[in-house]
Amino acid sequence: MKFKVSAELAYEVKAPSTLILNVHALRTARQTVLQEELLIDPYIKAEELPSTNGENRFVRLDITEPGEFSIKYEATVDNYYEIKDYRSFQEVPVSRFDPAVLTYLNPSRYCQSDKLYRLANNTFGQINNSYSQVVAVTEWIHKNVEYLSGFSNSETSAYDTVTQQAGVCRDFAHLGIALCRALTIPARYFTGYAYKLIPADFHACFEAYIGGEWILFDATKLAPLNGLVKIATGRDAADAAIASIFGDVYCNYVKADCQMVEDEPFNPIYYTKSVFDGVTYL
Amino acid sequence: MKFKVSAELAYEVKAPSTLILNVHALRTARQTVLQEELLIDPYIKAEELPSTNGENRFVRLDITEPGEFSIKYEATVDNYYEIKDYRSFQEVPVSRFDPAVLTYLNPSRYCQSDKLYRLANNTFGQINNSYSQVVAVTEWIHKNVEYLSGFSNSETSAYDTVTQQAGVCRDFAHLGIALCRALTIPARYFTGYAYKLIPADFHACFEAYIGGEWILFDATKLAPLNGLVKIATGRDAADAAIASIFGDVYCNYVKADCQMVEDEPFNPIYYTKSVFDGVTYL
Amino acid sequence: MKFKVSAELAYEVKAPSTLILNVHALRTARQTVLQEELLIDPYIKAEELPSTNGENRFVRLDITEPGEFSIKYEATVDNYYEIKDYRSFQEVPVSRFDPAVLTYLNPSRYCQSDKLYRLANNTFGQINNSYSQVVAVTEWIHKNVEYLSGFSNSETSAYDTVTQQAGVCRDFAHLGIALCRALTIPARYFTGYAYKLIPADFHACFEAYIGGEWILFDATKLAPLNGLVKIATGRDAADAAIASIFGDVYCNYVKADCQMVEDEPFNPIYYTKSVFDGVTYL
Amino acid sequence: MKFKVSAELAYEVKAPSTLILNVHALRTARQTVLQEELLIDPYIKAEELPSTNGENRFVRLDITEPGEFSIKYEATVDNYYEIKDYRSFQEVPVSRFDPAVLTYLNPSRYCQSDKLYRLANNTFGQINNSYSQVVAVTEWIHKNVEYLSGFSNSETSAYDTVTQQAGVCRDFAHLGIALCRALTIPARYFTGYAYKLIPADFHACFEAYIGGEWILFDATKLAPLNGLVKIATGRDAADAAIASIFGDVYCNYVKADCQMVEDEPFNPIYYTKSVFDGVTYL
Repeated sequence: MKFKVSAELAYEVKAPSTLILNVHALRTARQTVLQEELLIDPYIKAEELPSTNGENRFVRLDITEPGEFSIKYEATVDNYYEIKDYRSFQEVPVSRFDPAVLTYLNPSRYCQSDKLYRLANNTFGQINNSYSQVVAVTEWIHKNVEYLSGFSNSETSAYDTVTQQAGVCRDFAHLGIALCRALTIPARYFTGYAYKLIPADFHACFEAYIGGEWILFDATKLAPLNGLVKIATGRDAADAAIASIFGDVYCNYVKADCQMVEDEPFNPIYYTKSVFDGVTYL
Repeated sequence: MKFKVSAELAYEVKAPSTLILNVHALRTARQTVLQEELLIDPYIKAEELPSTNGENRFVRLDITEPGEFSIKYEATVDNYYEIKDYRSFQEVPVSRFDPAVLTYLNPSRYCQSDKLYRLANNTFGQINNSYSQVVAVTEWIHKNVEYLSGFSNSETSAYDTVTQQAGVCRDFAHLGIALCRALTIPARYFTGYAYKLIPADFHACFEAYIGGEWILFDATKLAPLNGLVKIATGRDAADAAIASIFGDVYCNYVKADCQMVEDEPFNPIYYTKSVFDGVTYL
Repeated sequence: MKFKVSAELAYEVKAPSTLILNVHALRTARQTVLQEELLIDPYIKAEELPSTNGENRFVRLDITEPGEFSIKYEATVDNYYEIKDYRSFQEVPVSRFDPAVLTYLNPSRYCQSDKLYRLANNTFGQINNSYSQVVAVTEWIHKNVEYLSGFSNSETSAYDTVTQQAGVCRDFAHLGIALCRALTIPARYFTGYAYKLIPADFHACFEAYIGGEWILFDATKLAPLNGLVKIATGRDAADAAIASIFGDVYCNYVKADCQMVEDEPFNPIYYTKSVFDGVTYL
Repeated sequence: MKFKVSAELAYEVKAPSTLILNVHALRTARQTVLQEELLIDPYIKAEELPSTNGENRFVRLDITEPGEFSIKYEATVDNYYEIKDYRSFQEVPVSRFDPAVLTYLNPSRYCQSDKLYRLANNTFGQINNSYSQVVAVTEWIHKNVEYLSGFSNSETSAYDTVTQQAGVCRDFAHLGIALCRALTIPARYFTGYAYKLIPADFHACFEAYIGGEWILFDATKLAPLNGLVKIATGRDAADAAIASIFGDVYCNYVKADCQMVEDEPFNPIYYTKSVFDGVTYL
């Protein structure tokens, strides 16, 4: 499906600073960037960094002049997802995990899976396959955690959210990731644009490694899984911030949008407990 | 210098399990493994995994039989370090950091640099170059944190150690890393064998990225910086555990040793505030 | 019922120190100390402190001589409990709470009820009376938290236990208290001697203020509720440590015991979900 | 000195609720309430609760009608403070502490003195008397912690503030209390009205028990120590909230003010390291 995505960011730069931008649509086997444009005002040269393990397209901006500074990114992206039936599938044991996914079993800044080991295994350990476990994790979070803007902050982690039971998409994703890892299911953070997300914003959810593939899960259920455009994946939000600032810069404005290019028929897909379909983009 | 290193681990396996072993001496431009041997008893096939970013040599063991299980690793390693004078050096700004090091600025499970930002900048922010900042961080940790076996556990992080002021080499390393990152200095965890470490054990310290190179620091001052044999680096101990166990396995015994192969003259190098020499292996 | 209780503590005193001892059986309307003896070796004068709100019988010891130091306390105590049927009872609203219990609604060091507010109310908020809520809290802890000696330490709090799901009697009590307070039910820590506790030790559980009375709950279910001899109550373990040490003193030995004086018939009472009986000593 | 104090609070009550109000000027040997008035609109009966240990004057309001609800308190208070010279004073050892102050040595919700033990003793342990220790604690906080409105929230504790180094008066007080207790100096939270505090608001600081008396300290240095009117003391903010709400009530407005009644000459007293004067109201 074709989406038109856009991001706008405006900053006030107090002193020469460096900014690592993470808003470009990722290029993958299943996601093609048909056209894109990055407008920087006042103009400076943007350096696209070599991707870390194909997971992102960071752009580095070296801002030497103080003052107002704005960025606009627009792209037309064509991607396709696959729906797989998980009524039966072949589990992959740790002994045959792709070595590249092992890092997604480790605890990270916002996903302290080591501290959630008992809770995860007590709550989900009896479920007999990894797909059903992640569905149960997702439903559990959706049921127990309230989406509440402003409740959490940039330091909030899965260890907080599991008890405090409120947060935003980022917190829902972190908790899902942490619980999966505690169940020995590799899981990673997904950030992207989301069609029909209300209100329009960047979105975060997570991917779990099931049967040798990365499958998408979104415990917020705020956006259809088949309306996403991937920006980056990473261990958690620490790896995938929209913008990392080094210097004296204040953000005044952030906006993200995602529209379908033409009026294709769109059947939104959300998880429900009773359906054994998984959505994967890669 | 040539070192003979060895590791012995013994386990009781209760059920079929997978073990990711991380005891092999790393192969780098400055560290050559002349000879090595891995003995597994009872014998099973070991799978050496492709290294993540050249940072480790994980070996995967798929243990299908319950019972006693032991591992012995021995290697002869030749490495050389370089001593650099940091009375003057060329700072590298974020805008010219090697993109591969940017990940080492992010907070991680045990190194919550985001929560230490003010403390780090209040305490070390006035120091006028990155090398002197990391020396000051190292001295500060050495002075304020007591080496105390058993004080910390596998969940202890830099955020705890900075206040609780006691721990083991792993905790000293995590705090050093977190403070460096909070100062916008990339830093990573180093695990290895250490000559003249008393008592003999695996050792942990950290590397900071200064002037475009990774320089070694050890706030414990328990082992000479020029007597180390690198096993792995990573974001923190979560990336570089000696052994990661997936299954039902109990560890009964761990031993590590490091000796010089011949009686070369050895002048141990420890940091002191007044010396502007940095030790780098890579 | 009559119990014979005893406590033995042995210390090594390195320098003159003060010790606040909290092992004396409390004197209440329903608990009479028939006989008691405190043996201190080497002998020093013990000062019984005026009780804070009738909740404890602290004894202060000013130890001026370094060396071995031991304490033995023995008492014969007669107490009686009341069993009340809570199939129907009169709820007391906050507006008519005894003012003295309001402090037991506040969060404390080990019972961060403020951080458990959502979890408590999401999980137990729909239950329609305070007695049934506390029974549900008790059952929930019993089901989800594993009794595991050595898992927790003196810094472990309810916020940890709720997620980490293992601990000892003290941790079970703290979690029960925190959840009650989050539900606007005053709750306090109970420490005492426990008949038929295996292995013999001091015990901790909690009291909840229901219908204007303090009712006993014990999520460990390790000791009968009608075999307890109260030492103290308090906001949490910070108020009711067996011994608080100010100085340079190491504890070498702690033992507690509780026996029935004669072979009265003893029908142990444990909570079960289906029984609407509450046990109160006061 | 005579002060006129006032507090205004406005609420929206969604459902019948109970409110415990804590804005009344305390009555002590050195603080006389000459006149006071509590206006409640719409009028309901206010119940003044018996003070817990003479530390507060809680007023309970049982609000049965939903709707707008406002409270105005005004009082004229005469209090006097004493300035004591601490160049020499008689230390009181734990063995002779007034038993009523022992509770202020225990860790509490926001003052985890147990976790700050090493930091406190490493940093202030060498200072040779308790008065100088608390002055050093106060100066250390003033120097290291930035007053920053909005940085902290109702869950922020001393364990956070000691590392995160920013907060408001409540956080400054909690950190001071925690460090004192870790040094075996009883300390408690003080909330009151403050003359010449800019902007006008309720204020928080702390009292330390030195030489057998409670002496005032304020690490914010935002209000003169001799312009305070005490509302309450407690273990920490959990004991001394301006208003505790049980029910469905939203606070729309809070204002506090403190003026001198007549133009007496007023010489504001702030702590400085070089002066050995302590201010006590009790």
